Amino acid sequence: MKNNMKNMDKFTIINELARRRGFFWQAYEIYGGVSGFVTYGVLGAKLKQKIENKVREIFSKAGIVEIEAPIIAPAKVFEASGHVENFKEPMVECLKCKKKIRADHLLQEALKMSSSETEKLSLEGIKEVIDRNGVKCPECGGNLSEPRYFLTMFTTTIGPYSDAIGYGRPEAAQGIFVEFRRLYELARDKLPFGVMQIGHALRNEISPRQGLIRLREFTIIDIEFFFDPEDPQCHIMKDVEDEGLRLLLAETRLRGLEDITEVTVGEALNKGYIKVPWQAAFMALAKRLLVELGVPENKQRFIEKLPWERAHYSRQSFDQEVYVDRWGWIEVSGHAYRTDYDLKRHMQFSGVDMKVFKEYDCPIEVERKVLKPQMARLGPAFKNEAQKIAEMLSEVSPEEFETSIKEKGHYILGNYKILPEHVEVAVERVKETGRRFIPHVTEPSFGSDRLVYVALEYAYKIKNDRVILSFPRDIAPIQIGVYPLVSKDGLPEKAQQLRQMLINEGFTVEYDEAGSIGRRYARADETGIPLGITVDYETLKDDTVTIRDRDTWKQVRNRIEALPDLLHKYFRMKIDFNDLGKPV
Amino acid sequence: MKNNMKNMDKFTIINELARRRGFFWQAYEIYGGVSGFVTYGVLGAKLKQKIENKVREIFSKAGIVEIEAPIIAPAKVFEASGHVENFKEPMVECLKCKKKIRADHLLQEALKMSSSETEKLSLEGIKEVIDRNGVKCPECGGNLSEPRYFLTMFTTTIGPYSDAIGYGRPEAAQGIFVEFRRLYELARDKLPFGVMQIGHALRNEISPRQGLIRLREFTIIDIEFFFDPEDPQCHIMKDVEDEGLRLLLAETRLRGLEDITEVTVGEALNKGYIKVPWQAAFMALAKRLLVELGVPENKQRFIEKLPWERAHYSRQSFDQEVYVDRWGWIEVSGHAYRTDYDLKRHMQFSGVDMKVFKEYDCPIEVERKVLKPQMARLGPAFKNEAQKIAEMLSEVSPEEFETSIKEKGHYILGNYKILPEHVEVAVERVKETGRRFIPHVTEPSFGSDRLVYVALEYAYKIKNDRVILSFPRDIAPIQIGVYPLVSKDGLPEKAQQLRQMLINEGFTVEYDEAGSIGRRYARADETGIPLGITVDYETLKDDTVTIRDRDTWKQVRNRIEALPDLLHKYFRMKIDFNDLGKPV
Repeated sequence: MKNNMKNMDKFTIINELARRRGFFWQAYEIYGGVSGFVTYGVLGAKLKQKIENKVREIFSKAGIVEIEAPIIAPAKVFEASGHVENFKEPMVECLKCKKKIRADHLLQEALKMSSSETEKLSLEGIKEVIDRNGVKCPECGGNLSEPRYFLTMFTTTIGPYSDAIGYGRPEAAQGIFVEFRRLYELARDKLPFGVMQIGHALRNEISPRQGLIRLREFTIIDIEFFFDPEDPQCHIMKDVEDEGLRLLLAETRLRGLEDITEVTVGEALNKGYIKVPWQAAFMALAKRLLVELGVPENKQRFIEKLPWERAHYSRQSFDQEVYVDRWGWIEVSGHAYRTDYDLKRHMQFSGVDMKVFKEYDCPIEVERKVLKPQMARLGPAFKNEAQKIAEMLSEVSPEEFETSIKEKGHYILGNYKILPEHVEVAVERVKETGRRFIPHVTEPSFGSDRLVYVALEYAYKIKNDRVILSFPRDIAPIQIGVYPLVSKDGLPEKAQQLRQMLINEGFTVEYDEAGSIGRRYARADETGIPLGITVDYETLKDDTVTIRDRDTWKQVRNRIEALPDLLHKYFRMKIDFNDLGKPV
Repeated sequence: MKNNMKNMDKFTIINELARRRGFFWQAYEIYGGVSGFVTYGVLGAKLKQKIENKVREIFSKAGIVEIEAPIIAPAKVFEASGHVENFKEPMVECLKCKKKIRADHLLQEALKMSSSETEKLSLEGIKEVIDRNGVKCPECGGNLSEPRYFLTMFTTTIGPYSDAIGYGRPEAAQGIFVEFRRLYELARDKLPFGVMQIGHALRNEISPRQGLIRLREFTIIDIEFFFDPEDPQCHIMKDVEDEGLRLLLAETRLRGLEDITEVTVGEALNKGYIKVPWQAAFMALAKRLLVELGVPENKQRFIEKLPWERAHYSRQSFDQEVYVDRWGWIEVSGHAYRTDYDLKRHMQFSGVDMKVFKEYDCPIEVERKVLKPQMARLGPAFKNEAQKIAEMLSEVSPEEFETSIKEKGHYILGNYKILPEHVEVAVERVKETGRRFIPHVTEPSFGSDRLVYVALEYAYKIKNDRVILSFPRDIAPIQIGVYPLVSKDGLPEKAQQLRQMLINEGFTVEYDEAGSIGRRYARADETGIPLGITVDYETLKDDTVTIRDRDTWKQVRNRIEALPDLLHKYFRMKIDFNDLGKPV
């Protein structure tokens, strides 16, 4: 087994193990499978839930709250967000076998171009590279069509009218942005505040082939954090400022290097590497999350995206990457400074005001231009429409009015031609009690499925030729295995009682009496069960059991009645294995 | 306020309260809203999660495990399941204003027909009723088109090929059925076992208008329980057999009555009211769930569906209904005996064997007919093809062969005409070690959103003209409110410390210092926070706080250090409010 595995990379091993043990597998296998869709089995669904709960725990301590919005949205939402325009990938079709291929991936594979290089290319650029290098269909060698863009959102219609286009959300963020007004009100009209959403999202990839790493349907964890750009103070800075971050900066990348800049959060802000303090703080939390999932610091980095690699809404983006065996560095979370882009766009598209008002500590006096309709002139000129015109003028921007007068000598107001003599542009001193502005947003965004994958790959260990999934104990899908030493003499009954007691205490427990105790331990190690409790003949006499540690295979012994309390402490990371009983 | 509310039904009140306090609201309001889509705010998302976790808890104790499959499925899945053929609603279009209307709902509204009556109607039947009664467009009075069926699944395409149709799942059940082989293997090839899925589902309703009761995107909780129809013994029967059920039986309904038959689970099975023991057991668990969500027994019933009301896959269905103020009895869960329908269909459509093998306790001897090729006759007749024919005969059913011989005097095997003399039909005694069969399925299926709605409606109470959401304490979205008596003299700092301590202990806590303590209590009552802890001047001296009960407004006092342990017990329903401290 070990020799076989030497020739396989971990991606293959993990996928095989995941399928066999029921963590996950390609969905719809009986119909040949569909690329980009997975089903999580019992262990995988539990692992995924525990990882998502860990994200909830870490970010809710920072004050983030959670909502749940739909996956399907009307077209308008993703027109406003810019996705209809930007969420697309270049595609070519083989003119011979009719296969459709993602063009940038094709160039990366055929010509070893980097993704950073292909992301710069326009459709014309792609065509030019294809023609110059004679790139052909990788399947049949046929000639390729002109490249065109393929919209990578799932499209549907909502209700019985065919013009009511709907899209499957490619990100959960928009479900938060469109509800901003209500969420702000529920936050009692105060900034900053952050809202999280965990749920399925859809990206209609052209030809996904990377297991959990690239899915058409996946689970996204989007956190949108709204703050005042003039007051970006971060309340949790004290907790994170000394946390170390490993940055691969854009300036380093532009010099063709991959050197890591190691800094604390505080230094990253002082040196201007990260623009927004809250973003830096969330990057620190993201790093801690991955450490808690079992990925050591030196297998993590934050890569700053180059301007042309960034999403259309972002002013600064870092991808948190984890090193994995087959693919090298892969993204597990993105940290984007989305500015006021999304709220501004929804304001334009919906007409609903997304500005917030923030009171100054004390009001300030400012000079402001105002338009004063001269009724003595307007009256004679426009008769009984003068009053209406005066009202309309109150909506006109004084600056716009002045420019028009300067350039054309008049200002067109609806159907009326307004001359300089009709209006006086006056300067007033007014008290301002606060400012109105669109909040800015910084966004940490995690892919649950990728977190599951890296947790699995980093849990994977070999000991004495046997596989152990060494999950951190607080994310292990099953916490405790319960085993009768043998299947007779009342041991199974005693073990079943113990199992039921532990379930009633809220633990996730597996009972197993099939095969030798050694085989059962091995099975438990391979599914990552941290503790095994064995009921033996001693148990019938004195109510003690052995407890076995998955990673060290050490055993301790203790009375059953002492277990619930100790086990709760153990899984809350408050005590260690050795505290669970006396060494055997 | 109270007088106003007298004129409103609870549906209106709950929706208004839900919107104002952030439980839920119609999604995409800034774009005019889209019918059938809601967004859950912070309180609603928490309430929904807690309700879903309660379902998990109740059913996992019965051994049910959970998986997570995709929402989008390839067409084949829903062709096999029968949904493409059956999941549709009759629709008419107004020839004048072009409005599209669900035809059965129109007849229910215009002619006061019952849903049980309209469900019987074919398209022709609907047309006949419309013509006979002169039913017109309810919006503009225009004439209506011929009725036609509208497929109520969301349709999309998967990937870049336009023929790769995909559907949004209208139920999560199929995601379990298509993975049956793998799930059975993971259950170590043993029946019975049950698999749950909780996730979003999509039904493209023609014109939904009932808030959380009828959504286009909703959360479904489907539990598929696989069992041997010849061994339907239920392992949890002892726990549920004395549980009372209120049944409205089909036979009662057919007599035009609504009388409830009150029986225990055991009686319902003995009298044959419920065909499958596991189904009866799950109905008992469903009843307990609703009681725990705050719906008393006498506001629940199980209505047996009439044959034409049942889904295409069901042999017996009960809907668990809850009485609500505006709509009367509404379904909150369905309990269907799906038999082997789904697995059989997927077996037909995929060609994958869905049968399981069950060993007998001891092998049995059975008589079986076999075909014995008579080589002495076949040889001369078919020369060197005789051997091939002998092999082909081993695949032929002896019964089919005999029938053909009896009726036609020969049997056509491929291109060969086989005569009686070529084959002897012998009877052999063989040992059978077990049987092969397709497992049967009984399914409890809950709508999360409806559970949220009824939990809200039943939590709604008025006390001294004030609103209280009296959630059972274990589903309350926020568990504890923390309040400084006044916003000065160090009380807010002390209260913040307390808040942080409680959060670290894992409680959901809200801190509020805005307004008088009375107003803060009122706000907390309206959001359903079971306990309020107030920090006052005493606290600074002796570290004691008052704890206030949401429902009785009683107060007790205790030391802060005693709280974590007591509160954990209180929220696990192990102690009562009076145990939390000394009466004030």
